[in-house]
Amino acid sequence: MEFPRLAVRQAVSRALAEDHADDDITTRWSVPAQRHEEAEIIAKQSGVACGLPVVSEVFRQIDTDIDVKELIQEGSPVRQGQAMLHLSGRTRSLLTGERTALNFLQRLCGIATLTRRHVDLVADLGVQVLDTRKTAPGLRALDKYAVAAGGGSSHRLDLSAMVLLKENHVAAAGGITAAITAVHPAMAAEGRDTLVDVDVDVDVEVESVPQAVEALHARASWIMLDDMTAPEIKQVVQATEEITPGRTVILGASGGITLELLRPIAKTGVDKISVGALTHSAPALDLSMLLTRTTGA
Amino acid sequence: MEFPRLAVRQAVSRALAEDHADDDITTRWSVPAQRHEEAEIIAKQSGVACGLPVVSEVFRQIDTDIDVKELIQEGSPVRQGQAMLHLSGRTRSLLTGERTALNFLQRLCGIATLTRRHVDLVADLGVQVLDTRKTAPGLRALDKYAVAAGGGSSHRLDLSAMVLLKENHVAAAGGITAAITAVHPAMAAEGRDTLVDVDVDVDVEVESVPQAVEALHARASWIMLDDMTAPEIKQVVQATEEITPGRTVILGASGGITLELLRPIAKTGVDKISVGALTHSAPALDLSMLLTRTTGA
Amino acid sequence: MEFPRLAVRQAVSRALAEDHADDDITTRWSVPAQRHEEAEIIAKQSGVACGLPVVSEVFRQIDTDIDVKELIQEGSPVRQGQAMLHLSGRTRSLLTGERTALNFLQRLCGIATLTRRHVDLVADLGVQVLDTRKTAPGLRALDKYAVAAGGGSSHRLDLSAMVLLKENHVAAAGGITAAITAVHPAMAAEGRDTLVDVDVDVDVEVESVPQAVEALHARASWIMLDDMTAPEIKQVVQATEEITPGRTVILGASGGITLELLRPIAKTGVDKISVGALTHSAPALDLSMLLTRTTGA
Amino acid sequence: MEFPRLAVRQAVSRALAEDHADDDITTRWSVPAQRHEEAEIIAKQSGVACGLPVVSEVFRQIDTDIDVKELIQEGSPVRQGQAMLHLSGRTRSLLTGERTALNFLQRLCGIATLTRRHVDLVADLGVQVLDTRKTAPGLRALDKYAVAAGGGSSHRLDLSAMVLLKENHVAAAGGITAAITAVHPAMAAEGRDTLVDVDVDVDVEVESVPQAVEALHARASWIMLDDMTAPEIKQVVQATEEITPGRTVILGASGGITLELLRPIAKTGVDKISVGALTHSAPALDLSMLLTRTTGA
Amino acid sequence: MEFPRLAVRQAVSRALAEDHADDDITTRWSVPAQRHEEAEIIAKQSGVACGLPVVSEVFRQIDTDIDVKELIQEGSPVRQGQAMLHLSGRTRSLLTGERTALNFLQRLCGIATLTRRHVDLVADLGVQVLDTRKTAPGLRALDKYAVAAGGGSSHRLDLSAMVLLKENHVAAAGGITAAITAVHPAMAAEGRDTLVDVDVDVDVEVESVPQAVEALHARASWIMLDDMTAPEIKQVVQATEEITPGRTVILGASGGITLELLRPIAKTGVDKISVGALTHSAPALDLSMLLTRTTGA
Amino acid sequence: MEFPRLAVRQAVSRALAEDHADDDITTRWSVPAQRHEEAEIIAKQSGVACGLPVVSEVFRQIDTDIDVKELIQEGSPVRQGQAMLHLSGRTRSLLTGERTALNFLQRLCGIATLTRRHVDLVADLGVQVLDTRKTAPGLRALDKYAVAAGGGSSHRLDLSAMVLLKENHVAAAGGITAAITAVHPAMAAEGRDTLVDVDVDVDVEVESVPQAVEALHARASWIMLDDMTAPEIKQVVQATEEITPGRTVILGASGGITLELLRPIAKTGVDKISVGALTHSAPALDLSMLLTRTTGA
Repeated sequence: MEFPRLAVRQAVSRALAEDHADDDITTRWSVPAQRHEEAEIIAKQSGVACGLPVVSEVFRQIDTDIDVKELIQEGSPVRQGQAMLHLSGRTRSLLTGERTALNFLQRLCGIATLTRRHVDLVADLGVQVLDTRKTAPGLRALDKYAVAAGGGSSHRLDLSAMVLLKENHVAAAGGITAAITAVHPAMAAEGRDTLVDVDVDVDVEVESVPQAVEALHARASWIMLDDMTAPEIKQVVQATEEITPGRTVILGASGGITLELLRPIAKTGVDKISVGALTHSAPALDLSMLLTRTTGA
Repeated sequence: MEFPRLAVRQAVSRALAEDHADDDITTRWSVPAQRHEEAEIIAKQSGVACGLPVVSEVFRQIDTDIDVKELIQEGSPVRQGQAMLHLSGRTRSLLTGERTALNFLQRLCGIATLTRRHVDLVADLGVQVLDTRKTAPGLRALDKYAVAAGGGSSHRLDLSAMVLLKENHVAAAGGITAAITAVHPAMAAEGRDTLVDVDVDVDVEVESVPQAVEALHARASWIMLDDMTAPEIKQVVQATEEITPGRTVILGASGGITLELLRPIAKTGVDKISVGALTHSAPALDLSMLLTRTTGA
Repeated sequence: MEFPRLAVRQAVSRALAEDHADDDITTRWSVPAQRHEEAEIIAKQSGVACGLPVVSEVFRQIDTDIDVKELIQEGSPVRQGQAMLHLSGRTRSLLTGERTALNFLQRLCGIATLTRRHVDLVADLGVQVLDTRKTAPGLRALDKYAVAAGGGSSHRLDLSAMVLLKENHVAAAGGITAAITAVHPAMAAEGRDTLVDVDVDVDVEVESVPQAVEALHARASWIMLDDMTAPEIKQVVQATEEITPGRTVILGASGGITLELLRPIAKTGVDKISVGALTHSAPALDLSMLLTRTTGA
Repeated sequence: MEFPRLAVRQAVSRALAEDHADDDITTRWSVPAQRHEEAEIIAKQSGVACGLPVVSEVFRQIDTDIDVKELIQEGSPVRQGQAMLHLSGRTRSLLTGERTALNFLQRLCGIATLTRRHVDLVADLGVQVLDTRKTAPGLRALDKYAVAAGGGSSHRLDLSAMVLLKENHVAAAGGITAAITAVHPAMAAEGRDTLVDVDVDVDVEVESVPQAVEALHARASWIMLDDMTAPEIKQVVQATEEITPGRTVILGASGGITLELLRPIAKTGVDKISVGALTHSAPALDLSMLLTRTTGA
Repeated sequence: MEFPRLAVRQAVSRALAEDHADDDITTRWSVPAQRHEEAEIIAKQSGVACGLPVVSEVFRQIDTDIDVKELIQEGSPVRQGQAMLHLSGRTRSLLTGERTALNFLQRLCGIATLTRRHVDLVADLGVQVLDTRKTAPGLRALDKYAVAAGGGSSHRLDLSAMVLLKENHVAAAGGITAAITAVHPAMAAEGRDTLVDVDVDVDVEVESVPQAVEALHARASWIMLDDMTAPEIKQVVQATEEITPGRTVILGASGGITLELLRPIAKTGVDKISVGALTHSAPALDLSMLLTRTTGA
Repeated sequence: MEFPRLAVRQAVSRALAEDHADDDITTRWSVPAQRHEEAEIIAKQSGVACGLPVVSEVFRQIDTDIDVKELIQEGSPVRQGQAMLHLSGRTRSLLTGERTALNFLQRLCGIATLTRRHVDLVADLGVQVLDTRKTAPGLRALDKYAVAAGGGSSHRLDLSAMVLLKENHVAAAGGITAAITAVHPAMAAEGRDTLVDVDVDVDVEVESVPQAVEALHARASWIMLDDMTAPEIKQVVQATEEITPGRTVILGASGGITLELLRPIAKTGVDKISVGALTHSAPALDLSMLLTRTTGA
């Protein structure tokens, strides 16, 4: 996934405003105006690097004379103690931007790192780890970018991007078959179906084996098995192979999937596992910025 | 702390835009336009309620006819299965706003809940649990509000709000004494000192017992003991009582303080403990919205 | 398609600002402040109604006491002389908002009307008329909404919404097969493929029969036949039936398709015809607002 | 007219956001990241060039390393097949910005081209072709700039810019004389009259010969003859010469003026003809961007 | 002049944000949440009332349940001690909005009051007092509105609103005649001249009697006599009557005109006097908000 | 105080928009496009320089090729006739930005100059001159920056920055003691107290000697003596020395303090004097921009 440059410009500008970066009294009252320094941003924990270009943007908005060099690649592993970026310029500017830069970076590295732990755990099973729309408000593009950097896969970007019938849609539409069969005519009425003989992707969330079977008969393209146990999921996988031989249906699992549950569920034969925690509960990666050398004044 | 109403208006508007709430194809293609429903937002885990007024704002921006009732008080405990809000109105609007409302709410309840766990653990020791500026970019006011709802205390709001000399300021200023003694004349030069014979609050971060002693002699108002062990902190507490009898200096501990370390550190006699994880690593509280009753069409 | 309420709020606010609606000297200097009136917005040409809810939003931003009633349904035909909306309230507010309201409405009705002409012309042939991304900058959501109101179908919403390999992508990738075959591994690397045995939708634009045949062999899901003649398109349709019996490939035509060319091209057997003119060259529908009755002062 | 640089910055930023230029999946999945290319924007129809500086702004916001050269002058004729701009840089950036750049350019060239056709048709008659406020919402400054590039004249910019009593003002004020005579005292009350013995410009719209005569007697400065036939207009021209010998009144014609009607109306002797279609119904000029040479990687 | 409602919405929202109205710690820590009160905004000095509708907007943004009643008319005199507005509602909201409301109101009343002093001083001489573009950045519409409320006249609104050749334009154009004669062809080239035999308004600033005479011969419509003494101005008035009998030229005076100089200059016979101080140096009117009665809790 | 760079970017962008800098007809119609010039911004009155970096920002937004050099230091005295900045570049750009640049600069120099007059008047008495929150809406950061440049001291930045119990808080809380004693528990409940045995700064406004005595007994940290005479203030100073020997309380005076009253009040022995006029009533410093030399075309 490409770094979301345009969205980041706005996000950084808001973050600097809310931190009152214009009025950093500590720095102004303790550090001489002419002093210049080199600095590094260091990982204090091992993890996955993500979000390095945010740092340039933060410092560009504060002071166009700060030089920022990325020392490792986005998405690559970073070990405890490793320098991720090298900065140089006016000391005051470095200190004023430090927290804002780290707040972005620690969140993005945290998401990428947690994603990688999930992905690695099931790498041999050919299962994809998906993100969700459970992102921090205002940071959707960045949060999803970090999942991709960690090797995860992007599920629905936003409400306009795909059909995903969740529990409440099923309830409001009067059941799984009713919900699925309502979609095609409504899409067609807007001219958004595709071909007569291939079903458009309709993802439906079910919560039991019988519901899953109903969805298979109703020709859903994707079925998300929500809050179901590994044995139940296994049953659905088998039913799927019977009902749709050749398996043209994607099966996903979702709902409260912890690191402990991930591998057992992956072994059931589902194609994808959706993990909200990647973006709503990833602990930040511990990072810090250190001044390394005075270069002037 | 008061609910940050004005900041929330902007944050909700951005969140709805990034979720393309204007083009919710799933809902439009599966739910009849005239249908009305009642719904509840339910806690699927026990925790602390926080952020309920965000929900009204989300739905007000989507559809002014959705009625939202808060069923519990901000900051009060919520047990698994308990309904937190009751909503009613057009089903489509309820489903379109669901995820955005929950994204705010699960984050804020998560922060309040994690804060309460910390606060309760040291409640008998008279130690305050402080937040930091390590908040999600763009959500500072809300994140800090949630810490307060959980019983935590607000440390520095932003760069303009107090003097906090961190490791890098000390390095750039040429040592602890140099940093602290630079502040007063600089403040005075801007006319921001207060009284000649009472030190203005200057918070300085130190990383060893000798540095702490140096800070005491330099007459810091607050000393944050960063990344120090409980025995080291204990030493500083004792030194403080000797050097400044009557203890007019605030001692805080910070840096990598986990739930396990919290109580041993609190027992050393520090006044405050600063926990970045409250806002940068709080897992979301698991919530969901359920349609409960069709009320029309 | 749902009316894009949230996007419209911003668009109306910008439009009123650029018209200096705060300083309408003509109205202020010629119409008494207390006067109230009823008014109607009338079609001066027959066409298709679209955008009526914009009118409420325009007047709500100017004066919350203007009452707006929609007299016909979005997407329904309107004949010359027919009243589309009824308004009442302070005369000055009606006159100040008139042009802004009409500017939105005449554009949206114009697009819906032109779309309907295209759709009706090929209705018996089962061909869909598609819009493009060739919309007025800043008005994408509204322009596409108007195409839907006219019975057209929405093609790609924006750059994130689907893969559409255009002439320049093909050139940069080194040919049609190279472009198509590059996509799947790249998608998979981001975890965005779907199933092993069903091709993800890849839309590719070709400009000759041999290129189309190449695309068929490379297993494109959609092929847009760009700037090709009806006989050439016919050839591709036949080749498609031979190469992919059962026709699992969508064929579209695009490029300079005028009303005259539409039916001959539709008769070739393509599934979809993409018409940029719907949004970039639709003439506005002629509308006007008339004061009908003084109601006060 | 000067290119509206400041307004364009905002308009381009909105256009890139609505096209999700941050997430161009087609380009990212088919074009190598290091590839560089030269490209040209070519006219596929003859017309008038307008809006070339928008292209630099679009690419500057995406990638500061794209080099853009304008090959022809704003407002000059461009013939089918002619290159208008030369671009070079990272291929991905060129493709990501292509549609946004062309959407602006094709609209502005379209308006300039349609304007030139009108202007040329009456060039020998000394009549000015005027634009109106019937512009695309959010694009007023650009639309009017394009009219000027095509040789047209700018009528009222916005509601604050001049007095133009339209049909509804006349109705609300109680007739033409009442409307015109209301203006001067109201202006004076705000101190915005100018000289005692020269009438301030008041433009009034009339719909019949007797109304025009009334306006002449009421000493309007401009009279717009709205929806009147050439013979009726001719009558007004004659009446004007009788009533105000020396012709100190400007006569304009407006309302449904097509290219066919333009010359007959121009021959009546009016000074100005106002054509809403210039901005609300100009077909886009057909343009395209072609990659011309690979320059690297 | 109409109250600039739309501009005020943005200005109030910015003002509340910069005052951190979301986090009013004083009010929250000293006033009970349920308390309700009545309050009045009182003039502590005599002056002219202006800007009362801003107060409703400020409180509407904070708390939709505050009731605001205007007790006097915009532009009317207010005497020391008089109540201008009556407010009632939640005490906390009243106190949080107090300063922002007063900051707008005291500025606008201050401008209106200073304007009235100038206007009254020359009322018997039929001279208009004009404002300038020397307004507080971001508050142009409000500042000019306040001048109008004080009886002053609005000169040029912004750079697009009229031609005003100032000293630097004259220098850059190569002299007064050169500057004036450049304008007409350039306007005409954009189609913005008006009539062949009446000069379009061109305002030119001159700094001596000979320059004024040159401007008269060059047929300027307005001549602003900048930084000239009363006797010099008198000479120009006489020259004007000789050169353009019937006086079709407007004469204005500008530049450092104090209250003391106003009447002598007005007596020279100029039509208008432009006073930058009205908006750039008006002292605020002293106002305060007083709680008058507890109404609840 | 540091120049508020980030806030200025927004403020300048708004100011250029409201001046329609995109459509400067005077300059465009009188000055050749290719002409280049040097210019200076000159003080026409003596005063204090402040806001020079705004000028670069204004011209950077208009035309990146204008070169701006600051000739004197922020906060230094400037004498009548002295050049403050040197500019060079395209003449049209210089003229278009002139007024916006000067509007900022004249306001900021005006505030700095008035502040310096106050500060100098009491320099020998060791009293600080404080600003207030009575700033122009939208310009808080700049206005306070200018006070600092003039040698004044910054009092409360915004509502979140300190506790200042004003007359209305005292009334709503039920008296001075009630108000002060309410604060500490409320702060503590949010965890924002500091040390048990040192009072947190609570600033309270009193209006009589007995109220001041009450505040002293209630252990306020700061007492602002509002609208009191010099003899009354003197009494409070004496009472303070009796009640709190060693003077650990800050005494300030506020309310209608003119230049005449400043020194007598300063002599009473108060620590600080708060002057709203610094920001709400400072006359602008008279500045102008002069073209000095043609440098090309």
